[in-house]
Amino acid sequence: MPLIQSIDSALHTNIGQHGVPTEALDAALARTEAALDWLRARHADGGLPLLQLPATHSDLPELRDRAVALADRATDIVLLGTGGSSLGGQTLAQLAGYMVPGVGALRAGPRLHFMDNLDPDSFGSLLKHLPLQTSRFVSISKSGGTGETLMQTIAVLSALHEASLGPRIPDIFLGLSEPAKPGKKNSLRELLGQYKVPMLDHHTGVGGRFSVLTNVGLLPAAMLGLDVVAIREGASLALKPVLDKRPAKEVPAALGAALSVALAETKNKGISVVMAYADRLERFTRWYVQLWAESLGKDGKGTTPIGALGPVDQHSQLQLFIAGPRDKLFTVITTDRAGKGPRMDKKLSEVAGEPGFGGKTIGDLVGAQGRATAETLAKNGCPVRTMHVPQIDEESMGELLMHFMLETIIAAHLLGVDAFDQPAVEEGKVLAKKYLTA
Amino acid sequence: MPLIQSIDSALHTNIGQHGVPTEALDAALARTEAALDWLRARHADGGLPLLQLPATHSDLPELRDRAVALADRATDIVLLGTGGSSLGGQTLAQLAGYMVPGVGALRAGPRLHFMDNLDPDSFGSLLKHLPLQTSRFVSISKSGGTGETLMQTIAVLSALHEASLGPRIPDIFLGLSEPAKPGKKNSLRELLGQYKVPMLDHHTGVGGRFSVLTNVGLLPAAMLGLDVVAIREGASLALKPVLDKRPAKEVPAALGAALSVALAETKNKGISVVMAYADRLERFTRWYVQLWAESLGKDGKGTTPIGALGPVDQHSQLQLFIAGPRDKLFTVITTDRAGKGPRMDKKLSEVAGEPGFGGKTIGDLVGAQGRATAETLAKNGCPVRTMHVPQIDEESMGELLMHFMLETIIAAHLLGVDAFDQPAVEEGKVLAKKYLTA
Repeated sequence: MPLIQSIDSALHTNIGQHGVPTEALDAALARTEAALDWLRARHADGGLPLLQLPATHSDLPELRDRAVALADRATDIVLLGTGGSSLGGQTLAQLAGYMVPGVGALRAGPRLHFMDNLDPDSFGSLLKHLPLQTSRFVSISKSGGTGETLMQTIAVLSALHEASLGPRIPDIFLGLSEPAKPGKKNSLRELLGQYKVPMLDHHTGVGGRFSVLTNVGLLPAAMLGLDVVAIREGASLALKPVLDKRPAKEVPAALGAALSVALAETKNKGISVVMAYADRLERFTRWYVQLWAESLGKDGKGTTPIGALGPVDQHSQLQLFIAGPRDKLFTVITTDRAGKGPRMDKKLSEVAGEPGFGGKTIGDLVGAQGRATAETLAKNGCPVRTMHVPQIDEESMGELLMHFMLETIIAAHLLGVDAFDQPAVEEGKVLAKKYLTA
Repeated sequence: MPLIQSIDSALHTNIGQHGVPTEALDAALARTEAALDWLRARHADGGLPLLQLPATHSDLPELRDRAVALADRATDIVLLGTGGSSLGGQTLAQLAGYMVPGVGALRAGPRLHFMDNLDPDSFGSLLKHLPLQTSRFVSISKSGGTGETLMQTIAVLSALHEASLGPRIPDIFLGLSEPAKPGKKNSLRELLGQYKVPMLDHHTGVGGRFSVLTNVGLLPAAMLGLDVVAIREGASLALKPVLDKRPAKEVPAALGAALSVALAETKNKGISVVMAYADRLERFTRWYVQLWAESLGKDGKGTTPIGALGPVDQHSQLQLFIAGPRDKLFTVITTDRAGKGPRMDKKLSEVAGEPGFGGKTIGDLVGAQGRATAETLAKNGCPVRTMHVPQIDEESMGELLMHFMLETIIAAHLLGVDAFDQPAVEEGKVLAKKYLTA
């Protein structure tokens, strides 16, 4: 069963003055039709390769073979790459418990280290404590020129040499970058080429923050034994209503984009909070933050994304969400929780003064909390969209990922910005290099 | 050497129209004097026990003994507690590598599991895979009535019974809650009292999000062998200019609060971004988010905090920060990085087409990036405060923590809200319990 979205609690008619007025929503929805036409045209002519991925399976067997071969007998797998070269992989890896409190540290199988931030202490410590003999490395950069990734890669290559593992580098290292183009330097390929490191091709038509369904996201997923076919199939569920030419209001991604843009334009909701009631969606919220921020934040436009987790952020951000400035749209993501997890002993529940807990499960409480938070926000006049998936697995994750990529592209169309560039970050990069070499 | 703060790049005179006008800053600064007087009066009369903590050492030997005894021969330490009962401990634990990519998973010593979110899958997995024989548990709730913490505690007690470890519970479990008061139920104490679990007292005058310098934060820190005295001493550095009756503009916390409130009131900067260039400050940014959001987000007031990490979020949120809506104040936190971390091989740097990397360290690049990001934001007219500490250690962490607690309290004074309550979250709690037992 696919994703169920409701915007009932975001409507002016239901929650009052901070809800979206019917006419503003309808107007924005009408404007999404052109974006949906554009998506269908790009699906037909192949102009946006992202849209071909859900139905593509031919690349997956080789990807799985590569992943399995690299992970074989490894104690540690180190993923070098930042931003969109890492967050998609982390998001999928969390399905297998990566960085989930109480789960990640007790998982069987190789430890994964996504080194997406550059930190001299962390990287020094990693190279000092990593069992290099049984470690594997994957270096990911679309352009091949990402400074952080190049530095990390150079440091690892040097460490392997020092450990006399130089001859094994082609067996324990993998690179992922765009194919070499005549006349254009690809630094990562040149660097790894010196060591005959096998290279996978980064899709040239899919940018970093949209790359989770390519080998960039699926390679780490496959190394963890996840069902990469189901991830792509889940993505097709989100694309289907677009390709089926459903009216915009029946395309969840179009409805979400229209809601967000209409609330920003008519009600000054400049912040978009995505609050997920599942540990395994924590990295997903961070992936969403990059996707939304970097795709829409240009020309003075866009709204500011915030990721939150439930129930823990009820004890952190919820006070502000309910009682602070009315500048937010909320998306609350829930899953079927009833009856799941450890069940409460009746006698202990009574001792704890919570007889109502007796016989209930942890999932029963989490389910009640997700529902209560969405309703409390709405009762207090905050616009809320709810999204529900039966469970967090490969299929629903694929659907959520594609939903938000489509929603972002449609929102960019409504705002009149290019979803696929990020021109503002160049200036700082140039300046940093100047300071580095000064 | 203590924290160095500069607001030069947030001033109208330096960055133009989005900077704070001199008169608005001066007016807000003048209003902080009353808050500083209030703080000094509370320090003198003991009315705000938080202010006594930096100079208090008498409780630390027993706390360390408890921590060492509990951690002795443990493979795993599970911390039950949410919100302010967890984030302070996590923030300090990160000094020892907790949840630092590439570091946390390779650390020697017991694994720490801060179960601050409630998730049936995660908690079920934890209890299934945890080596119960060698695990220790700490349950933290100020009131003793936090539903999530009670459920987790009941589940652990049941699991220990099932594993025939019932008789060992008093040796492997520790509770932390307010002292029992006549006529007021403390559920956690009653529950753990059944098993003769030793209890530490939660300070009655220090609320969760301000509790990092009490045993709530310092117990986990001590279990990791951190220098808890230095944490408190660092905190005293931030308090000193207040107690020394320095003029407001020379009290960093007052200057920060005045800047933030003046920019919100005169320039609509409704979002406060704290971007730290250090892996070991990632949990600190989350701790800050709770502190700022829950203390100030009331009566329609407050600004929305966002935590970010550098350089990784240059590849995620920076595009929006620079080119999106002008609704943000930025705080960029940097440390001395020059010469630190792995050094780049000259030949490999040349092969990678980055001869400028040769002989430089990862820290050299990170240092250059932190500086470049702050300057690029300012050049683009975004108000930036910079904060610099020589290194991330117990002392500087203590200073940062106390700085932001003071800044938050002073900002609350300027906004006219109560920094210490969180009335808006009750409604959802009641509703969740209703749904749970329906």
